[in-house]
Amino acid sequence: MIDFRTEPSRYRHWKLEFHGPVAHLIMDVNPEAGLFPGYELKLNSYDLGVDIELSDAVQRLRFEHPEIRTVVMRSGKENVFCAGANIRMLGKSTHGHKVNFCKFTNETRNTIEDATQNSGQFYMCAVNGAAAGGGYELAVACDYIMLVDDRRSSVALPETPLLAVLPGTGGLTRVTDKRRVRRDRADVFCSVEEGIRGKRAVDWRLVDEVVPPSQWHDRVAQRAAEFAAKSDRPADAQGVVLPRVERTEEGDTIRYSTLTVELDRATRRATITVNGPDAPVPTSLDAAKSADFWPLRMARDLDDAVMHLRLNEPELGLWVFKTQGEAAAVLAYDAFLEAHAGDWFIREVRLFLKRLFKRIDVTSRSLIALIEPGSCFAGTLAELAFAADRGLMFEGTRQGDNHKPAAITLSSLNFGAYPMGNDITRLQARFWGEPQSIETARAQIGTALEADAADDFGLITNAYDDTDWDDEIRILTEERASFSPDALTGMEANLRFVGPETMETRIFGRLTAWQNWIFQRPNAVSEAGALKRYGSGIQPEYDRNRV
Amino acid sequence: MIDFRTEPSRYRHWKLEFHGPVAHLIMDVNPEAGLFPGYELKLNSYDLGVDIELSDAVQRLRFEHPEIRTVVMRSGKENVFCAGANIRMLGKSTHGHKVNFCKFTNETRNTIEDATQNSGQFYMCAVNGAAAGGGYELAVACDYIMLVDDRRSSVALPETPLLAVLPGTGGLTRVTDKRRVRRDRADVFCSVEEGIRGKRAVDWRLVDEVVPPSQWHDRVAQRAAEFAAKSDRPADAQGVVLPRVERTEEGDTIRYSTLTVELDRATRRATITVNGPDAPVPTSLDAAKSADFWPLRMARDLDDAVMHLRLNEPELGLWVFKTQGEAAAVLAYDAFLEAHAGDWFIREVRLFLKRLFKRIDVTSRSLIALIEPGSCFAGTLAELAFAADRGLMFEGTRQGDNHKPAAITLSSLNFGAYPMGNDITRLQARFWGEPQSIETARAQIGTALEADAADDFGLITNAYDDTDWDDEIRILTEERASFSPDALTGMEANLRFVGPETMETRIFGRLTAWQNWIFQRPNAVSEAGALKRYGSGIQPEYDRNRV
Repeated sequence: MIDFRTEPSRYRHWKLEFHGPVAHLIMDVNPEAGLFPGYELKLNSYDLGVDIELSDAVQRLRFEHPEIRTVVMRSGKENVFCAGANIRMLGKSTHGHKVNFCKFTNETRNTIEDATQNSGQFYMCAVNGAAAGGGYELAVACDYIMLVDDRRSSVALPETPLLAVLPGTGGLTRVTDKRRVRRDRADVFCSVEEGIRGKRAVDWRLVDEVVPPSQWHDRVAQRAAEFAAKSDRPADAQGVVLPRVERTEEGDTIRYSTLTVELDRATRRATITVNGPDAPVPTSLDAAKSADFWPLRMARDLDDAVMHLRLNEPELGLWVFKTQGEAAAVLAYDAFLEAHAGDWFIREVRLFLKRLFKRIDVTSRSLIALIEPGSCFAGTLAELAFAADRGLMFEGTRQGDNHKPAAITLSSLNFGAYPMGNDITRLQARFWGEPQSIETARAQIGTALEADAADDFGLITNAYDDTDWDDEIRILTEERASFSPDALTGMEANLRFVGPETMETRIFGRLTAWQNWIFQRPNAVSEAGALKRYGSGIQPEYDRNRV
Repeated sequence: MIDFRTEPSRYRHWKLEFHGPVAHLIMDVNPEAGLFPGYELKLNSYDLGVDIELSDAVQRLRFEHPEIRTVVMRSGKENVFCAGANIRMLGKSTHGHKVNFCKFTNETRNTIEDATQNSGQFYMCAVNGAAAGGGYELAVACDYIMLVDDRRSSVALPETPLLAVLPGTGGLTRVTDKRRVRRDRADVFCSVEEGIRGKRAVDWRLVDEVVPPSQWHDRVAQRAAEFAAKSDRPADAQGVVLPRVERTEEGDTIRYSTLTVELDRATRRATITVNGPDAPVPTSLDAAKSADFWPLRMARDLDDAVMHLRLNEPELGLWVFKTQGEAAAVLAYDAFLEAHAGDWFIREVRLFLKRLFKRIDVTSRSLIALIEPGSCFAGTLAELAFAADRGLMFEGTRQGDNHKPAAITLSSLNFGAYPMGNDITRLQARFWGEPQSIETARAQIGTALEADAADDFGLITNAYDDTDWDDEIRILTEERASFSPDALTGMEANLRFVGPETMETRIFGRLTAWQNWIFQRPNAVSEAGALKRYGSGIQPEYDRNRV
């Protein structure tokens, strides 16, 4: 079982150094500490375990270190920055693991960009050695790239010539769309095993600056200070320490402080029930600043549950979202998040929630929201219903149950706080064909919309009453379980993202889909394919037919 | 060998009827006339042969029938409109054939939309029977869909539940992006084998109108007349008949009237040499109106060559574009195309050239342009260089050759006449990172830019002189041939399309890439997969793991 919970004292691959407003995030991979046996993480190559630590570090830098304004990503090894994803690991992995590994890696890189763009925490990359493949992809997730001009250090995307796969964790897309490298130069760059260095790397926009070794340390420090000077992060705030996410497992039930996950292996379904706030809204901003703050605690729990289910429970193809609690309590927290949006900590909580919902959007599982009496699909928690492929709502009350009828209540946070990867809200995506419905919905902020109203306003897929509810849910569950998981994955990845495209959607859509295709092709993954034969000294054998 | 050349008298699956400004394009597939043995094209299901005829009909309607303003797509069979792509055909096809079949089908559907949007020839679909899968995808390529309300006729995308694949020829994308069906309803629609009919089909925007059987004929005629009234096509123009594209094959050389294709199987390379105009520019618009008009003749020849190479020569992974002739002659034709852009025929020629270059953009082959002394990469023909993954230019003259040094000459047509699928020009894509270079290039219209200048203006990848030219080309050819064809396909599909996305790029990018992935997955294509077991009465067996 893969555990996503870690903390700096347990890191095996990364080091953090703090110099006033500048942190150094130093990659120093322990070759012997791979997540699975059977490969050595040489030359700062990485596996999912390395990325779990990176993801944790990026998250902690945001919450625990309000004073950090620039993060310098660099290598702790001589002459090598990072050799990319470990090839032996890829060669031994199942298709599903490769796909999920790449997805998580992509999400971590997006989180780095999110910190630069939205948190005032600027990531720059000091490439002090060869950066190849995923190593360069890590660099291009940073918004400024310095390359030491020592005639050895270079940047490269050698996947196509060496490995018969793509620079698939954002590389191809960021080279053309972010770095805006001319397409024929990008073609050359992606064909050159040894990569590009020196002045040409700058001329082609592959890096921002090359620096002679003698000036390296000073120049890196100077740039870090320059970026730090532009940040709006507070110099004197107290960080919020993130303790270990606690969970208990009992049979097929996993309990977190804010939610419960029930695994139903017979129907291949996981039910995630998020509890509304268990504590009143803090009386002040200072009182809110702790990992106990309900929205943060809930986000951390749900994030852990999402990653656990993705990687460790691939057979559970349907995720059912439920909530239980008081809508008013959720809305009170939303009001607090809105009132203090300018505070660094509240900003981080909101950005984390945004990233969490995005993670759900790109999860390859069918997502159903069940909106029942006693639930609290309000404001922030209503995003779970809007992220779902379908939202089913209980009409009226249950016999023998004294809960009020189910309702959805919108808050202002549904109208901009949590954009999807395509930069529109889930309500905008939902109402792509009828934008006037967004304004109609906005006028309902704060109103508890029961089934009829929610249906009229287009917020749910279907409503069923007590007579039909259980049958309809059972039928839908069975139907979904009867479909091919692959067809569902492709279908959902297409239907969820309507309208505009961004670099992020292109990475998760086009680039990832092509990479996944290649990860199925014998030229890459058969016994004679490039991923298996890499490093063996034997040339891979290719079927030369183009499609 | 698959031949893409046909004409109405040879159609086996389609009929054309003409009623003044309205044509009926009637699908009446001959079940016995499949392109390959081993399957019957029941219920108006189709294979590539059916689509080759459709593509031909759509093209001829534009050129041969200036008087046609509305095309009514309908079925010639009782109770069935079209059952989509033939499943047995798909089950028996190689992966490469499936991929190329879908690509061509997509292109034909895009051509239908292009006629509606740009040619004043409006396509409406009169769904008089069940339209399932590819059948409904054909309907949504039309811009108005009528459905007969006979309680039997419905529209459906049953691919996911029935076949474990996607509605992959535009269906998923057009449902959300063109028809703007709400995403959860799209999810329901794509899960319901039997489809949706009647009022709900209208409410969900799946069709534009349902019509009782008693009013069907009149209402279809009425709508066709309404759309015809809005067209700007001339009522009294003479059509331009398209004779059969002639070609001769001699060993590994294929000759067309305007170009030559040389197949080099040893190096897995096809060299396409386009000859500049062999006739002076017509002295009048009337004199231009024939299939002999060089730009049209060249486009038809090149289109045929592209399709031939795509389907029949999959092992030739590298296409080399060359030209030979007088740049001035090409530019004279460009000036003619510009001067008469408002004429219906010249508009069609320009739109056809646009579609041809788009076909090249989405071709899964490495594309290299060799710009040598004696070549005429000018204006329209320069698009071949800009479509290529790399453009290599000969610097200076060849020893013992009295041709002038190679040059690229731009015309105004390079700045808007031939947009890519993402609606930007190839020069805009090329200069995505430096938009000012577009204006710099525009100032050079009409100037012969030799290697140094072409390099300075960013129009080529590399220039080599006589000493290095042959070696460099040989090295590049060998390098490209040594890479995995699949990795190249994915890499090129990503690098070629920078910047904005359109419905078209989403279809060729995200949707197609996911479908191709699914076409490799055992759940669809193994012996126990859904495509193989369809119709056998035996349930497919699925690996239930999600990725």
